[in-house]
Amino acid sequence: MKTRAAIATAAGKPLEIHEVELEGPREGEVLVEIKATGICHTDAFTLSGDDPEGLFPAILGHEGAGVVVDVGPGVTTLAPGDHVIPLYTPECRQCEFCTSGKTNLCGAIRATQGKGVMPDGTSRFSIGRDKLFHYMGTSTFANHTVLPEIALAKIRKDAPFDKVCYIGCGVTTGIGAVIWTAKVEPGATVAVFGLGGIGLNVIQGARMAGATRIIGIDLNPARKPLAEKFGMTDFIDASKTDDVVGTIVEMTRGGVDYSFECIGNVKVMRQALECCHKGWGESIIIGVAGAGQEIATRPFQLVTGRVWRGTAFGGARGRTDVPKIVDWYMDGRINIDDLITHTMPLEEINTAFDLMHEGKSIRSVVTY
Amino acid sequence: MKTRAAIATAAGKPLEIHEVELEGPREGEVLVEIKATGICHTDAFTLSGDDPEGLFPAILGHEGAGVVVDVGPGVTTLAPGDHVIPLYTPECRQCEFCTSGKTNLCGAIRATQGKGVMPDGTSRFSIGRDKLFHYMGTSTFANHTVLPEIALAKIRKDAPFDKVCYIGCGVTTGIGAVIWTAKVEPGATVAVFGLGGIGLNVIQGARMAGATRIIGIDLNPARKPLAEKFGMTDFIDASKTDDVVGTIVEMTRGGVDYSFECIGNVKVMRQALECCHKGWGESIIIGVAGAGQEIATRPFQLVTGRVWRGTAFGGARGRTDVPKIVDWYMDGRINIDDLITHTMPLEEINTAFDLMHEGKSIRSVVTY
Repeated sequence: MKTRAAIATAAGKPLEIHEVELEGPREGEVLVEIKATGICHTDAFTLSGDDPEGLFPAILGHEGAGVVVDVGPGVTTLAPGDHVIPLYTPECRQCEFCTSGKTNLCGAIRATQGKGVMPDGTSRFSIGRDKLFHYMGTSTFANHTVLPEIALAKIRKDAPFDKVCYIGCGVTTGIGAVIWTAKVEPGATVAVFGLGGIGLNVIQGARMAGATRIIGIDLNPARKPLAEKFGMTDFIDASKTDDVVGTIVEMTRGGVDYSFECIGNVKVMRQALECCHKGWGESIIIGVAGAGQEIATRPFQLVTGRVWRGTAFGGARGRTDVPKIVDWYMDGRINIDDLITHTMPLEEINTAFDLMHEGKSIRSVVTY
Repeated sequence: MKTRAAIATAAGKPLEIHEVELEGPREGEVLVEIKATGICHTDAFTLSGDDPEGLFPAILGHEGAGVVVDVGPGVTTLAPGDHVIPLYTPECRQCEFCTSGKTNLCGAIRATQGKGVMPDGTSRFSIGRDKLFHYMGTSTFANHTVLPEIALAKIRKDAPFDKVCYIGCGVTTGIGAVIWTAKVEPGATVAVFGLGGIGLNVIQGARMAGATRIIGIDLNPARKPLAEKFGMTDFIDASKTDDVVGTIVEMTRGGVDYSFECIGNVKVMRQALECCHKGWGESIIIGVAGAGQEIATRPFQLVTGRVWRGTAFGGARGRTDVPKIVDWYMDGRINIDDLITHTMPLEEINTAFDLMHEGKSIRSVVTY
């Protein structure tokens, strides 16, 4: 079949909108009509050429929502008409990772996903005679895409695509880090480094978990009002102090119970660890650092009881947990609307990247 | 009263045996006759002068066992004749650390302990007109010493002092790291870096916890037979491979569930983290690194699910957990006898340091 897509032709170049050829679903696969997709920093990172695993030409996009159009042989849990969110972290429920009960990092299709192809080793996208790579197993910058059944979360039909697509990455990453990775408990004290989209979702996750003090740290004080709306109780303007760690330790009489790094800056990751309370404070790295960069600290920080963790996709098991987050949104327990600052058609997708780089958007969404 | 003690007069000098003056117990304090004491690397570290918090002249020693001789006003849980193990990590059961249920790092007397004095700010040891500093709140290199009630674990009376003194530090540090910090479960795979006294105790802790594969890593293959006796199932001679991490990942098809660094080498700490299994592997730092040294890794290691922790005194709450470990020894569940390679009178204490530095002992014990 033919569909429209934004193609990343080469590193550093704007996306190009073209009609592309898409093969239908094979065994265990599902054809999805994407109705909306968010544009995320990870897409921009790969498009920039800085991602050492980036492949071109490719159809990027990993934060979508849509409707099942067709299913291949052997698909049992989805049918045409079902509403779905594509999962770049699938959930096969069979591999050693899924069955461990300790992680969401399903290993079932990791190798092929990283190579830009479907689990059988082929690409389904082409333009003329040229194959196009899939991206993160999702390629939501195409109006139609093919995914394995295990990489689709079935969601309720009354949820608006142009909002819940954000649950495909940013919302789940932030809220999940609080709920499933850190397991923040009521009464906890939390520090959130970076008040972009992920940081704001961490803040509302912490509020939902019952944290009583939620300290936001950012270089840009203009972010304070929205962060407060999401649940931030205290703000530190990092541009006005040389000692963020000392400030937090003093404010909290010893440090926070949990901290979250939502930037991808290895120096901030160190601050996030060291502002944790002796004996039990846990720091969770969410941000993605540049290739080759390293975190460092004195081992004394760990020997005296701090814990250093990371999280991917918020520790969420996609098929199990993403539908819950959609429910939380529909029940008014979490706010997505205020985070989606721009909506546009596919033809304007490059504007979404510009807005992101200029710091003018929290999240832009393309609707098909 | 007068008692005999080994005095650390200055950094880098041998200990000197002298008769010293000891004041009796004040409010909440207990006078203990030390019957036996181990000699630990931490004593040597402070004696060397490398410990930035080391104070001289002082009475070192923190791994003892003895009998209560007298108690001060207000002491309710101990009486003369009770057998006890001094605790450099006390357990007041009142402070925010003890009541958190999340850590053993009691904060009740930390400030004064670090300054080499009793909680009321004074030293009870003197020689002539000169005050001597206490050390780690224990000073077990004196035949008699004074401790706060909260820094003494009451143990059964049939336990031999010259063996269970080792529970005052090394045994608890190693076994506790497995049981209380890592919470190793039956069937787990474990890597132990460094097969000295701590490493051997980690190994027997892992065996007791039901770990099915226990991989030991050391530069010295002579340590293999004893480690096997304690429960090691596989040995890696680190002098014969450039890629310890790769070797472990291959042996275990993906990495270990838990690793323990028992050396104090920041490069080995990184190996210990990176040989952990993606998704859930946890690395626990036990060894004490040199002043100012730092650990480093790529944040990707944490974002993909590894966890970096540390432990002090094995996460054990001294008054609660040390008596349990004494029971485990008396019931034959753990082996201490094979770890105590040398026993000597106080007059030969400097020989114990020599044996340690020469790598000829696992643990030397001085009996009074």
